[in-house]
Amino acid sequence: GALGGLVLGLWRWQQAAMAASEEEEEEQQLRQRFMAPPVSGMRELRRRRRELRSRMELLLMETQAEVCRALAALDPGAAFAVDTWERKEGGGGVSCVLQDGDVFEKAGVNVSVVFGLLSEEAARQMRSRGKSLKAKDGKLPFCAMGVSSVIHPKNPHVPTMHFNYRYFEIEEADGTKQWWFGGGTDLTPTYLNEEDAIHFHKTLKEACDKHDLKLYPKYKKWCDDYFYIEHRGERRGIGGIFFDDLNSPSKEEVFQFVKSCAKAVVPCYIPIVKRHCHDSFTPEEKLWQQLRRGRYVEFNLVYDRGTKFGLLTPGSRIESILISLPLTARWEYMHTPPESSKEAEILEVLRNPKDWVH
Amino acid sequence: GALGGLVLGLWRWQQAAMAASEEEEEEQQLRQRFMAPPVSGMRELRRRRRELRSRMELLLMETQAEVCRALAALDPGAAFAVDTWERKEGGGGVSCVLQDGDVFEKAGVNVSVVFGLLSEEAARQMRSRGKSLKAKDGKLPFCAMGVSSVIHPKNPHVPTMHFNYRYFEIEEADGTKQWWFGGGTDLTPTYLNEEDAIHFHKTLKEACDKHDLKLYPKYKKWCDDYFYIEHRGERRGIGGIFFDDLNSPSKEEVFQFVKSCAKAVVPCYIPIVKRHCHDSFTPEEKLWQQLRRGRYVEFNLVYDRGTKFGLLTPGSRIESILISLPLTARWEYMHTPPESSKEAEILEVLRNPKDWVH
Repeated sequence: GALGGLVLGLWRWQQAAMAASEEEEEEQQLRQRFMAPPVSGMRELRRRRRELRSRMELLLMETQAEVCRALAALDPGAAFAVDTWERKEGGGGVSCVLQDGDVFEKAGVNVSVVFGLLSEEAARQMRSRGKSLKAKDGKLPFCAMGVSSVIHPKNPHVPTMHFNYRYFEIEEADGTKQWWFGGGTDLTPTYLNEEDAIHFHKTLKEACDKHDLKLYPKYKKWCDDYFYIEHRGERRGIGGIFFDDLNSPSKEEVFQFVKSCAKAVVPCYIPIVKRHCHDSFTPEEKLWQQLRRGRYVEFNLVYDRGTKFGLLTPGSRIESILISLPLTARWEYMHTPPESSKEAEILEVLRNPKDWVH
Repeated sequence: GALGGLVLGLWRWQQAAMAASEEEEEEQQLRQRFMAPPVSGMRELRRRRRELRSRMELLLMETQAEVCRALAALDPGAAFAVDTWERKEGGGGVSCVLQDGDVFEKAGVNVSVVFGLLSEEAARQMRSRGKSLKAKDGKLPFCAMGVSSVIHPKNPHVPTMHFNYRYFEIEEADGTKQWWFGGGTDLTPTYLNEEDAIHFHKTLKEACDKHDLKLYPKYKKWCDDYFYIEHRGERRGIGGIFFDDLNSPSKEEVFQFVKSCAKAVVPCYIPIVKRHCHDSFTPEEKLWQQLRRGRYVEFNLVYDRGTKFGLLTPGSRIESILISLPLTARWEYMHTPPESSKEAEILEVLRNPKDWVH
């Protein structure tokens, strides 16, 4: 009767009030924490908060926001443009791009969370070891999420930095879920600065060492091997760490390792930017930077598995994949720096990678 | 006896005198006709003058010289640098490059004549139809020769032009010789100029029509299909002609067709350069050119079979393969020209190729 109606009304009011404050809190939290609402929605992420997929998506969004804020603080005249986008076939992403700033020529930090059905062929290409997966009717339900970023600064004494952390799940015909993580952080200087190289590698090594002392040497080598421009006989840069297909010892342990790596991005890079973004440079140094940008484009378009996979994936967002390309690049026929020059010095390290920390 | 010795001496003297005048004539002919001595040597080419390989090599050298001279005449402040190079595994080439001229940003015309042994896998990749070839001990003797060129002008109202004419021979285990020709000429304008487009296509059509009226429509479509940047949904340019794996009706007839195409390069392109190389342009037009240069790089590094094959071939000369890349290029995130602009006009044609001649 009346009491029942009153109780129900009160309950409804309480619910509405709670929802409102929850929404407000959510809004506030989003504004503070993230560059945009996560693809899966905060409510859904909270509901499934114990699932690794949700925790990984939050880590991706947090990493994006941390990096964007740290970069924006160094380039006060510029701001990140934030685009949220949907993928027709399932999922979407948040792309943050700062272009033509005072410090950064182009800085892109992209989160994508996509899901749907993969062909067996596409699933094979996705995985570097090429393990075959049993599909039901030739299709495999999958979920792929990652944060990916390339920062190209203007000053040739500030190196380009790239990082990418990603998680995949594929469900086989018998319901078995295959999962793995991949990722890495690496540096591409125009000129060699040993102090910077050591700081960068040391910070990454510390992140790895917290989990297993074997990780850094293994992933440092993997990075040197992966970012190899075979037709030039050069690495893209002075490396860092790189790993793929990581699915042991356990989902939780790998996630904690990936989290440590993601948290190391700002401390390994930002001090280097701060140290050099006001260095003076000559037109010749800028030219050499532009030629190195050309090599960066060569690696990304010819060899990079992520880029190639992205370009071949139906419904992928091309503009977000190609954020990695520099604003400007240059190719000169037969450019060869003189012996013992600073240009020859970095080439030597790109041809014969060094160990920066022991 | 004495008479015998005298006769022999006289014969030797005549031989030496002939050789000397032959060499002089050869030198003179080379200076007049070619940018550098042909890879196979004039004497060898003369000795085997009836063989198609020799006639094709001479056509390649002639085409290179014709194009370089026509371009150099339009850019009097600049000159072609000529590099002859050898391939360790067999053969070599002549690369002519004009860089940072007044009219041309980068113009490369490269002849290569290489031979040796191919793996079955490499032979399969070489041929677009992927016909399998029977090898002896897994290796196939091959000969590949071609002239390849990309001309990137400075002025955004002068289009980029590319052409490539090539000939392959592969010997199978049973001694059968497979042979085929490939090639094409195509135009990549920054802005659409209908008159130029019609002139370019009409000149190519006339070259084709001399041989068979079916050729131009077929190779025009093949060109539009081949130079497709799938991830952008755009063609690289406004096309021209393209063909591959051509081995009928006969070696002689295909050679004559290829010769007509090669001879059409200068008349289809040079009048367009002359017409526009002094056009005035704005910084915005230069910027749009740089963005289109970026698309050119994307096509060449991601899709072009010739570039990919070159980068993967052991002993290939990287600098000659990558002559095709522009001196400078640009990538802006989410650049979209306004509707009804001149930039949107060319994009429309790149998305939906037009017929320029009937």
